[in-house]
Amino acid sequence: MKITAVIMAGGRGERFWPKSRNNCPKQFLSLTSDGETMIQKTVKRLSPMVAPEDVFIVTNAAYTDLVKDQLPDVPAENILAEPCARNTAPCIAFAAAVIGRKYDDAIMLVLPSDHLIGYEDIYVSTLKKAVKVAEQGKNLVTIGITPTYPETGYGYINFGKEEGSAYEVERFVEKPDLATAKKYLASGKYLWNSGMFVWKISSVMANLKEFMPDIYEGALRIGESFGTQSYTETLVKEFSAFTSESIDFGIMEKADDIYTLPGSFGWDDVGSWLAVERINETDDDKNYVDGDVITVDSKRTTICGGKRLVAAIGTRDIIIVDTDDVLLVCSKNNTQDVKKVIAQLKEQGRNELV
Amino acid sequence: MKITAVIMAGGRGERFWPKSRNNCPKQFLSLTSDGETMIQKTVKRLSPMVAPEDVFIVTNAAYTDLVKDQLPDVPAENILAEPCARNTAPCIAFAAAVIGRKYDDAIMLVLPSDHLIGYEDIYVSTLKKAVKVAEQGKNLVTIGITPTYPETGYGYINFGKEEGSAYEVERFVEKPDLATAKKYLASGKYLWNSGMFVWKISSVMANLKEFMPDIYEGALRIGESFGTQSYTETLVKEFSAFTSESIDFGIMEKADDIYTLPGSFGWDDVGSWLAVERINETDDDKNYVDGDVITVDSKRTTICGGKRLVAAIGTRDIIIVDTDDVLLVCSKNNTQDVKKVIAQLKEQGRNELV
Repeated sequence: MKITAVIMAGGRGERFWPKSRNNCPKQFLSLTSDGETMIQKTVKRLSPMVAPEDVFIVTNAAYTDLVKDQLPDVPAENILAEPCARNTAPCIAFAAAVIGRKYDDAIMLVLPSDHLIGYEDIYVSTLKKAVKVAEQGKNLVTIGITPTYPETGYGYINFGKEEGSAYEVERFVEKPDLATAKKYLASGKYLWNSGMFVWKISSVMANLKEFMPDIYEGALRIGESFGTQSYTETLVKEFSAFTSESIDFGIMEKADDIYTLPGSFGWDDVGSWLAVERINETDDDKNYVDGDVITVDSKRTTICGGKRLVAAIGTRDIIIVDTDDVLLVCSKNNTQDVKKVIAQLKEQGRNELV
Repeated sequence: MKITAVIMAGGRGERFWPKSRNNCPKQFLSLTSDGETMIQKTVKRLSPMVAPEDVFIVTNAAYTDLVKDQLPDVPAENILAEPCARNTAPCIAFAAAVIGRKYDDAIMLVLPSDHLIGYEDIYVSTLKKAVKVAEQGKNLVTIGITPTYPETGYGYINFGKEEGSAYEVERFVEKPDLATAKKYLASGKYLWNSGMFVWKISSVMANLKEFMPDIYEGALRIGESFGTQSYTETLVKEFSAFTSESIDFGIMEKADDIYTLPGSFGWDDVGSWLAVERINETDDDKNYVDGDVITVDSKRTTICGGKRLVAAIGTRDIIIVDTDDVLLVCSKNNTQDVKKVIAQLKEQGRNELV
């Protein structure tokens, strides 16, 4: 069966402010020293199993030019521009309907555009196994990540008995507190929910029809109009009317026939500035520096330089991000508070800095 | 007797890099939120006892335009431009000779251009008392600062018996270690050497003649040429030939008739970026911020912003200085290491950043 990939690239990536901005969010940035952007890496690592013409990018209409620039091998008609943000269920339904219109049925990999994978061969091999499971019946397959520590920032997947290379999913659980997360790890029965899914177009459409009939109908109408003159008008009308809902809540927590494959391929969701030192090489003092930087007696310091010289002296456990119009100096204990600065800027009407 | 002031303004102020640069050192910067530069404050606080036309600025030839711009009330002929740096003894001899040429004899206050004074009335009153002591015989008077803690970065003045409002100086001592500094404070007989001097032109010239005859002769020749066509040529020739020497080592440690007046007028030598929080108002979390700054959960952070937004999140005990071409992030424990960065830049030939 034809394998297609749907890359979800509509996110705002506020946690990487000030590099990430409304007009250029995280998936379009390079956070590694090789200069490749997150979305470029995402498409490249799929190349052993999905050709560029079968890669579909669902993104905000504002980012279609960025996608075209960064992914010149992906056909322009594969860029599916959401007129507004409606979370993952409408996004996936939209893509499924368009792909269903093009191919009678097909495998659909659903992948975030802003994660990193350390072991790409294992990643591809895991996806291929997932494809085999998804080809059977109306199975929905999710890639779980074998946890390495009791993270409280992710949802978890509780799995049950083994069937072939996959496990039946018992239930999805929300972000736990630390004690619960520790219990999950100790039980050996919980994986991190990575937001990567594998299914047939026919399977996900059947489930949408059952659990989200309005979105199913609307998506079908968008799919029917695809390639016709009324497409844009239909898309704006139908998509705007969709309820904002995640695929996890809308389908995965309700459907039967859900399977998970444990993945151990160096997955990193690159969730905050803390990730930069994890995904890059650091020096002997655990500093990561990019750009024109001089350090003196600095340790565990992450510096993403801009156009100017950055001198860091005696710094510890701090992140420095220099851009043309904003400088961020942030303790590693406070990376989530970047959002508070963005909130203040919005309040002050300084949207050019957001 | 006529009172004149000689402001020594040739320093490089490396410890305030990157705001302080070779082409605009510390004395020409404002480090307080009122916007006045250090040298402007120096001249202004003297105004109750010295008129601008009796203020002489000895500076490097490269800074004469800065002086003219910042001190428009000081006559241009009072700006004495050193062709090269030769420490304080040649600087003072040069000024004394020029002033001696203009006035037969006069009182000469010798003052640094880059210190701050909290209590200006007490300062002026102390200087007036010093003038009275200096008018007697060939006394050389130095203003000592009553120590408030055992600083190891200053030289000390050991004083003996009281004579009028002054004390006889027993000896000058170099920067002590901490144990010695503590002993000095406990003895009640040591003051900080502030580098402020008061004497008659005739007194300092007599001492120069005795202890530094080459500089004395050269300075006389410069003074004789002052206002003539051969001035610049004579200045360059004579000044360049001077040995580089401090007035402390050259005269003060050798001469008799040395007196000191203890000053308690909120003196601050503004010796490093640490001074900024001392000399300015801080917020409840002991942050000092200047410019377009947003802080979230920051404490004891000094931020001197530039043209861009600076966001500081969760920072502690750190100094952030933003300029057009250099950003400094420096732990408060390492403010002296700014010099190491400058040394690296010089090594790399990046003189435009120094």
